[in-house]
Amino acid sequence: MAEQRAENLSVVVHRAGDLRLENRPVPEPGPNEVLLRMHSVGICGSDVHYWQNGRIGDFIVKKPMVLGHEASGTIIKVGSSVTHLKPGDRVAIEPGAPRDIDEFCKIGRYNLSPTIFFCATPPDDGNLCRYYAHNASFCYKLPDNVTFEEGALIEPLSVGIHACRRGGVTLGSKVLICGAGPIGLVCLLVAKMMGAAQVVITDLSASRLEKAKEIGADFTIQIKKETPKDMACMVQGLLNCMPDITVECSGAEASIQTGIYGTRSGGTLILVGLGPEMVHVPIVNAAVREVDIKGIFRYCNTWPMAISMLASKRVDIKPLVTHRFPLEKALEAFETTKKGLGVKVMLKCDPSDQNP
Amino acid sequence: MAEQRAENLSVVVHRAGDLRLENRPVPEPGPNEVLLRMHSVGICGSDVHYWQNGRIGDFIVKKPMVLGHEASGTIIKVGSSVTHLKPGDRVAIEPGAPRDIDEFCKIGRYNLSPTIFFCATPPDDGNLCRYYAHNASFCYKLPDNVTFEEGALIEPLSVGIHACRRGGVTLGSKVLICGAGPIGLVCLLVAKMMGAAQVVITDLSASRLEKAKEIGADFTIQIKKETPKDMACMVQGLLNCMPDITVECSGAEASIQTGIYGTRSGGTLILVGLGPEMVHVPIVNAAVREVDIKGIFRYCNTWPMAISMLASKRVDIKPLVTHRFPLEKALEAFETTKKGLGVKVMLKCDPSDQNP
Amino acid sequence: MAEQRAENLSVVVHRAGDLRLENRPVPEPGPNEVLLRMHSVGICGSDVHYWQNGRIGDFIVKKPMVLGHEASGTIIKVGSSVTHLKPGDRVAIEPGAPRDIDEFCKIGRYNLSPTIFFCATPPDDGNLCRYYAHNASFCYKLPDNVTFEEGALIEPLSVGIHACRRGGVTLGSKVLICGAGPIGLVCLLVAKMMGAAQVVITDLSASRLEKAKEIGADFTIQIKKETPKDMACMVQGLLNCMPDITVECSGAEASIQTGIYGTRSGGTLILVGLGPEMVHVPIVNAAVREVDIKGIFRYCNTWPMAISMLASKRVDIKPLVTHRFPLEKALEAFETTKKGLGVKVMLKCDPSDQNP
Amino acid sequence: MAEQRAENLSVVVHRAGDLRLENRPVPEPGPNEVLLRMHSVGICGSDVHYWQNGRIGDFIVKKPMVLGHEASGTIIKVGSSVTHLKPGDRVAIEPGAPRDIDEFCKIGRYNLSPTIFFCATPPDDGNLCRYYAHNASFCYKLPDNVTFEEGALIEPLSVGIHACRRGGVTLGSKVLICGAGPIGLVCLLVAKMMGAAQVVITDLSASRLEKAKEIGADFTIQIKKETPKDMACMVQGLLNCMPDITVECSGAEASIQTGIYGTRSGGTLILVGLGPEMVHVPIVNAAVREVDIKGIFRYCNTWPMAISMLASKRVDIKPLVTHRFPLEKALEAFETTKKGLGVKVMLKCDPSDQNP
Repeated sequence: MAEQRAENLSVVVHRAGDLRLENRPVPEPGPNEVLLRMHSVGICGSDVHYWQNGRIGDFIVKKPMVLGHEASGTIIKVGSSVTHLKPGDRVAIEPGAPRDIDEFCKIGRYNLSPTIFFCATPPDDGNLCRYYAHNASFCYKLPDNVTFEEGALIEPLSVGIHACRRGGVTLGSKVLICGAGPIGLVCLLVAKMMGAAQVVITDLSASRLEKAKEIGADFTIQIKKETPKDMACMVQGLLNCMPDITVECSGAEASIQTGIYGTRSGGTLILVGLGPEMVHVPIVNAAVREVDIKGIFRYCNTWPMAISMLASKRVDIKPLVTHRFPLEKALEAFETTKKGLGVKVMLKCDPSDQNP
Repeated sequence: MAEQRAENLSVVVHRAGDLRLENRPVPEPGPNEVLLRMHSVGICGSDVHYWQNGRIGDFIVKKPMVLGHEASGTIIKVGSSVTHLKPGDRVAIEPGAPRDIDEFCKIGRYNLSPTIFFCATPPDDGNLCRYYAHNASFCYKLPDNVTFEEGALIEPLSVGIHACRRGGVTLGSKVLICGAGPIGLVCLLVAKMMGAAQVVITDLSASRLEKAKEIGADFTIQIKKETPKDMACMVQGLLNCMPDITVECSGAEASIQTGIYGTRSGGTLILVGLGPEMVHVPIVNAAVREVDIKGIFRYCNTWPMAISMLASKRVDIKPLVTHRFPLEKALEAFETTKKGLGVKVMLKCDPSDQNP
Repeated sequence: MAEQRAENLSVVVHRAGDLRLENRPVPEPGPNEVLLRMHSVGICGSDVHYWQNGRIGDFIVKKPMVLGHEASGTIIKVGSSVTHLKPGDRVAIEPGAPRDIDEFCKIGRYNLSPTIFFCATPPDDGNLCRYYAHNASFCYKLPDNVTFEEGALIEPLSVGIHACRRGGVTLGSKVLICGAGPIGLVCLLVAKMMGAAQVVITDLSASRLEKAKEIGADFTIQIKKETPKDMACMVQGLLNCMPDITVECSGAEASIQTGIYGTRSGGTLILVGLGPEMVHVPIVNAAVREVDIKGIFRYCNTWPMAISMLASKRVDIKPLVTHRFPLEKALEAFETTKKGLGVKVMLKCDPSDQNP
Repeated sequence: MAEQRAENLSVVVHRAGDLRLENRPVPEPGPNEVLLRMHSVGICGSDVHYWQNGRIGDFIVKKPMVLGHEASGTIIKVGSSVTHLKPGDRVAIEPGAPRDIDEFCKIGRYNLSPTIFFCATPPDDGNLCRYYAHNASFCYKLPDNVTFEEGALIEPLSVGIHACRRGGVTLGSKVLICGAGPIGLVCLLVAKMMGAAQVVITDLSASRLEKAKEIGADFTIQIKKETPKDMACMVQGLLNCMPDITVECSGAEASIQTGIYGTRSGGTLILVGLGPEMVHVPIVNAAVREVDIKGIFRYCNTWPMAISMLASKRVDIKPLVTHRFPLEKALEAFETTKKGLGVKVMLKCDPSDQNP
């Protein structure tokens, strides 16, 4: 293994448009860290965004950065203070690990900590590579009946969990999801897992809606030229009532408006998709009907519940993976994601085990 | 129909041990009421208790009282102020309907209202009869794909919903349920619907546990001579962790103790079963681990979510019904329930339609 | 008294610009109602709005309507079903009383009920008159040490309570209030009562800010030409941190923007002021910092806590009343309010008792 | 200063009954720690308990341990990673600092973390000494207008905050507090700060109740031979209603029973006092009235809100300090506390500044 570890093939973005496969040193885990042999890493829209644009908002790629944050692997070494994990453990990796126990961390909302480490958010390196060291407290042991790919999918699933939890999805909820991309689909899966009775999902693309139907959407609406108020009416027509919760995953202004007009009084509109900085919205309509508007920033406290759920075998998230590439073909994988083909592209980082 | 309605066969308890089938007048609905032709009414342990003991705690049968409160039927007449229902509507009946908009009603906890009307709680008559008038706001329309028996089962299901909701059962929860009688079983079904990952259920009876296994329990423990601390250990062994929530459905002192010792720190123990007035409990153990102890009194705000859930066809509660009797054989049906045979005994009140 | 009651002098808006003092019949209380001899009724901005514009949004004055909904009085007759009140009781009146026990009422959010009766919202008459009948469940007995005017002020106070409660104001909170009109001032009072440590309040008017300072504002900012981002910075500078909660009471677009930029991550922006239907807002900024945006529609469940608080004598809201007029001079009183003089104008409806 | 620091006079318990003043080495702060010159340290009942009994429950003094955990001081050195504090900063010390970012820490309930460091809980040393090193994230800067003694009192205040917060004390709450010792008194102060309208406090001792009256209790009851049900009635009589929240600070079985019988339906009983392991309680009474029973274990997330509150000068906690001793007279101070004299005994650890 020593020889193998001399090389740490990594997917590195140098600047906008400049993505490279290159060898980096194998890191040494700190006292509270573990060293991992990476197994499966999904490509996220944000990875593609950094590659294409070199930035997302105020996060700017100023020096070469390893991409990847939807990941799982096997522990091969543990830091001196680590007691709850050992070499050989298969784990899912939560990419955000707070550096400081600050006011946000103390109240259990560590995702809001301004100094948090987060994989593949400049300047922090991600884990699309062969070997990677991470805060041991944010590596979660996978039961034998949960695959590495399911482990990697916990990251996008976590967005859905955080969104649905902040929206208050529960037994019998009627939910509208705007956007049937990967995040819309995980929100759909999670809403159902949390007991939602009916989910309507909307998108411009018929094929995406087809996929949504397959994994459990009760109703789909292909958006054409409808106004937000029209859309709200159509949704109400399908459900025979307004949805309790709307999860907006597109970031489109019109869709946010639909979410306001279309959510029942006393309900919640969750903003997951990120669109333009300023939007025009009928905020009085939301205010006087007490439709709360809540955004989400990543997630917190989702890995344990996701693993419990996956271990229970009561939900099947595997169909989300539509493409697989060995790490060596990462550039091809990124091209595939960029084209919007399929749902989730998975990179296989372990040359000796390319199984799911 | 006029002729038929002249008779209103009803199951009436006169005093402890004195249960009769007798004809009563068909009621006339008040302005906010509807008159129902009853279809399916389940027998509850409390119905048997009033028959056997003539009282439950401070609620005493002082004059003849119609039993029954797990019910569904068809509207045949509406009061002058009723607009949301019409004759022909199939409905499930919420047996508790507040008489006053008091402080409890105003905050959405109408189940705690001291002046609430409640079917088959002295002195209020229940609906185990042919014709029954009820507050229209507490009758809920059943979709075509939900049967009358499912409608009647919403009442016991509501106990499970209220219990699991107050316990905070959510995605990935590990749950311990003490007692595998009808209420334990509905708690099991509801916990799973709300996303619980694993449920352990305990009982003295192997056959009850068998039923629990059939409808989804992940683990069962047949209690023999274990101490509460032993039980807590066994549960932890099965789950590889302590349960987040314990739902105590037996009322046994030992079982409440198990719930305290066995629930993880920061979790919740829900008391559903009612046992002796005073119990001996290790309350300091709960206190210093911040295990909250919460009881439930009936339920509130459960019918709409239960109907949504049943309409979604994502849960099958029909196996709970193990026996059916026509209303005329009510005494036989009560004997069956008293013997503890099966799970739920259903009385069929409509001679022209004895279907589920 | 019989003679006196033959006349029921009332302040009636007929259409935009047409406000009249006229005699109306004395109503007869229904079974669940009480008849009141009105004592003190405050004039609200919405009363003036109906007088000036004949409408607020979709609520249109189509037939003559009595104004007034900030009120207290004495019971002189009770309906046949009323048991908790009796003639002679001094009460504060909650102007919104649900007509139906609908889904909103059942969950304790009766303010969202679409069929609610609400004083002085077309077509429902208000209580700016000598005699008025109201739902007894929404009349609250005043302790001897709470004046009628304090009782009438519970209505605006309730807006502040509902706003601060939905914002989560608690011990040690830092709060920004945008707008120092009557509603901004009650929000200030309530925030302090709930334990807020520091409150910053902003307004265009120096005299309003002066009043705010008098009743407890820790800091005031007179808005000139600052941008929303500038304002956010100034607030942060004064508090040495961003406020946990912002209560927006002006309805101005710029002020909503300030609320978004200026509230700390994980905090809440409460929208109380109502401005234009569509606004331009930096919603992504709120979303990615998990600043929740919540509006309020009137209030619910506030009278009991307000009365408890007033009875405790721990807060003095009397300085809010700056002008008093006998009912006969209602038109003059309305002119005073329209000019924006003082804070709260109180009409004295009982010719035999014009005391506070 | 070097010379001075060579000696670190400390109050050390060696075993039950064996309390010594001895010199210990001055610690060196780790990378995330600060070194403090201690100023004021209050004596807590638990300090006396360790001295008298050598243990509290499962926490046993097995090796000499420095006592003290209600503390404030001045930073004289900061660890290499500390950025938010600097020498000269006056700080209050939160005695519990989690060692692991475990499941409890992640959800914001770090007080439940089983591996937490906690001052003066075996085997962790406290800070009743001249020099002490502590986790910098759990030292909170004091504003200039907050004294060291107020800083030290934040610890007992935190118990009250955590109790009242878990009890849901808010504007207008009616509260019963059982026990008028130091913790009962801080619960009283905090309840009032959070907006409680009326507080009843009970105790066996007239002098304690006198003190409670002085600092704001609305009603006091000196317990004689009343049964729990009698007590519940008396409280209801004083408040004209049952209290929304009961905070039990005595640990006595009878008092817990009073809390169950005496709290209004839907309310909360908070257990702060710790009594015998097993108690006899009418748990069905609590359950069927949905009176939630919640204990507290220490506190979390209280220092920032306490400091905000103290800085606002809206509450005066200084009267809680009734005795002061220089550190050299610690044994005398402990004797004073043991005798139950006064409320809070404060030790002054800085020979050059013995001011409050």
